[in-house]
Amino acid sequence: MQYINKSDIKNMAKIYRAQFINSLSGPKSANLIGTIDKSGQTNLSIVSSCVHLGADPPLVGMVIRPRSVPRHTLDNLLETGYYTINHIHKTIAKAAHQTSARYPKEVSEFSMVGLNEQYLKNFIAPYVRESEVKMGMKFLDRIHFTFNDTEFIVGEIVAVHFPENILSEEGSVNIAKANSLSVTGLDHYHELKALYRLSYAKPGKDIKEID
Amino acid sequence: MQYINKSDIKNMAKIYRAQFINSLSGPKSANLIGTIDKSGQTNLSIVSSCVHLGADPPLVGMVIRPRSVPRHTLDNLLETGYYTINHIHKTIAKAAHQTSARYPKEVSEFSMVGLNEQYLKNFIAPYVRESEVKMGMKFLDRIHFTFNDTEFIVGEIVAVHFPENILSEEGSVNIAKANSLSVTGLDHYHELKALYRLSYAKPGKDIKEID
Repeated sequence: MQYINKSDIKNMAKIYRAQFINSLSGPKSANLIGTIDKSGQTNLSIVSSCVHLGADPPLVGMVIRPRSVPRHTLDNLLETGYYTINHIHKTIAKAAHQTSARYPKEVSEFSMVGLNEQYLKNFIAPYVRESEVKMGMKFLDRIHFTFNDTEFIVGEIVAVHFPENILSEEGSVNIAKANSLSVTGLDHYHELKALYRLSYAKPGKDIKEID
Repeated sequence: MQYINKSDIKNMAKIYRAQFINSLSGPKSANLIGTIDKSGQTNLSIVSSCVHLGADPPLVGMVIRPRSVPRHTLDNLLETGYYTINHIHKTIAKAAHQTSARYPKEVSEFSMVGLNEQYLKNFIAPYVRESEVKMGMKFLDRIHFTFNDTEFIVGEIVAVHFPENILSEEGSVNIAKANSLSVTGLDHYHELKALYRLSYAKPGKDIKEID
């Protein structure tokens, strides 16, 4: 086993450390955040920090670095109060990754990377037409992390769109069937292969594969 | 496409909604949190909400529900100031899942599920011996989410242990090689299959597969 301590981490070159630390929390979700400002200018940014916060109310959190590109995302979602979360699958992974380039605010990443805006059920923020699983989000709160000057954005899921054939009987959306990807480190993309579903855990009872 | 709105979500049965909403944020990390209290009583709990918060300083966040089983985890990490994050791989997935059973505080999930405590480099909290990628964490802050009465725990990575052959040249730990799993919904486990690494994005430059 290799051992890396706090000072080893501190002494790493910046990009090397970013790759190393980004890979340690485990598989990350790969999503595109769609926003629009009041003048109608849209923005699309790739985010790997979306995290489930709770089911009732249905909440998703995400980390935004105010000093980097997603600043446009933050400005827009604060301005309108709404944004979309769109799963990235294999066919759109390169276009999704390209949204991380530093485009000026007055151009939309949608047109720059060749993805299409989609407006559904009068929701103000643009969805990604090519995405299979997409959520309409209502901004609830932002928490400033003083440790590293980032913003943690909390939103409520108010709309969900997905292909009918990927909804499992027990309620979950089958993200392997939707070909949703996972990202690790800064730029490593992974496909998901369903292994099994495990039974509800109780003391003294064996865990069984149930799917 | 199927459309689910806010009131559809509200009207779902509790477990169905938990499966549905838990699956929407995308692939989740699958980790075991190891803790110990001042009397030496250890605790181990499965957590799917670990999220990368930043590389410098190296931070990982996680969501803890105070009213559920991981309460022991929260108590212990507040008491000692330290905890461990241990990746779950295929061989230990069922044992890891079993830690979610409601054991009383005076028994350790380590012995109940058949995983071994490991103490490394004088770090106070127990690692999981069978885990391949494991981090020693220093508690930094807790943020109470009033929306759903959960705690968001922020910790700093102060130690990392992993097999030498899974460190990539560019710095990332190859979690596919470590057989780390992803969880979606409440109980669906997925393996990761490396697809590719994508090049750094710049305006006007094509994204290339670089691994």
